[in-house]
Amino acid sequence: MKKVAVILSGCGVFDGAEIYETVLTLLAIRQQGADYTCFAPDKEQLHVVNHLTGDVAEGETRNVLVEASRIARGDIKPVTECKAEDFDALILPGGFGAAKNLCTFAVDGPDCSVDSDVMSVCKAFAAARKPAGYACIAPALAACVYDKGVKLTIGTDENTANGINALGATHVDCQVDDVVVDVEHKLVTTPAYMLAQDILEAHTGLNKMVQSVLAMK
Amino acid sequence: MKKVAVILSGCGVFDGAEIYETVLTLLAIRQQGADYTCFAPDKEQLHVVNHLTGDVAEGETRNVLVEASRIARGDIKPVTECKAEDFDALILPGGFGAAKNLCTFAVDGPDCSVDSDVMSVCKAFAAARKPAGYACIAPALAACVYDKGVKLTIGTDENTANGINALGATHVDCQVDDVVVDVEHKLVTTPAYMLAQDILEAHTGLNKMVQSVLAMK
Repeated sequence: MKKVAVILSGCGVFDGAEIYETVLTLLAIRQQGADYTCFAPDKEQLHVVNHLTGDVAEGETRNVLVEASRIARGDIKPVTECKAEDFDALILPGGFGAAKNLCTFAVDGPDCSVDSDVMSVCKAFAAARKPAGYACIAPALAACVYDKGVKLTIGTDENTANGINALGATHVDCQVDDVVVDVEHKLVTTPAYMLAQDILEAHTGLNKMVQSVLAMK
Repeated sequence: MKKVAVILSGCGVFDGAEIYETVLTLLAIRQQGADYTCFAPDKEQLHVVNHLTGDVAEGETRNVLVEASRIARGDIKPVTECKAEDFDALILPGGFGAAKNLCTFAVDGPDCSVDSDVMSVCKAFAAARKPAGYACIAPALAACVYDKGVKLTIGTDENTANGINALGATHVDCQVDDVVVDVEHKLVTTPAYMLAQDILEAHTGLNKMVQSVLAMK
């Protein structure tokens, strides 16, 4: 049974991991006969967003690992415990947390930095030539992990695509139900909620991403 | 297209709505050609549980509607706006929130009370003879909504079943991949994470619950 490490960035689309994307990804992994372990960085979130109003909850702080453990029913580990040699593949669902807590792309664009613990793990999978899937906005982080010219997608948003190209990657436009595969780098990306209007649309692309990742040798 | 009202109780298994159950329910509704609107009570949670440690986060407060909006990507309404005449069916996923925030079964057992706004909505669906699905521990709430003798399940846990029988319902043992249907009351229940060891197990039972609810006239 293939084992997949899944890195989460909190719990909730506006300040953490996108919940639909995460659950659909975990479901797809299990439906395709693989197993998963969830990880997240043990650090404060960039901020807390009230998901009803969209406003930042001033003065409130939450921990990425603690909040991500809500999705994983408590079954999650600090990302520092994620060793590439223990897994066959790596997957990062999206949500703003990927661009706020795992890296700073949401704030700094092409001048972004990546959380050093997350970077170490992602680089280790890349160096070991193990397949990886990054969904939604998480490919912005992939652009920092992989060699210049790596092919990836966040969908069709031109501004975001330009920011990712400025990081050295080569953005490829992609529809919501499809994936972009960089065979050389063993990297699979899909737009998910960068484009999805509906849980069914996200489901199709995420299934395809998980299938493509697990099909890679 | 059938329309389903879904009442959530927060965001996270230990103090709110079970996230896997909620997302799998919403996915099943859409996959079966229906649409959903999410609702939650606009009130403080009973408490906040750190899902990593399992401990109550002393001094912290969170609002049920605001937290539930994390799952629903902000697309959610106060439960007071849920009118039975606008929908074909009602579904309540589980998680401790159903027994801590929607009613007090987790604390008071058979002496529990139900949030008055939630009770009004659930009673309205029952009175209109519209089908309803309650998953996991939410059937404890259903025992307060429906007539004495209503048949339902929370799985196989004897203590919980006894508590539900003391509320006047008739508990029927049920495996994780199955549902209990009370045809007379148009009530479908499934154990979900009262028994599930895995997202796949929960998926099977929840799919069956949604199918059964949507198949009812």
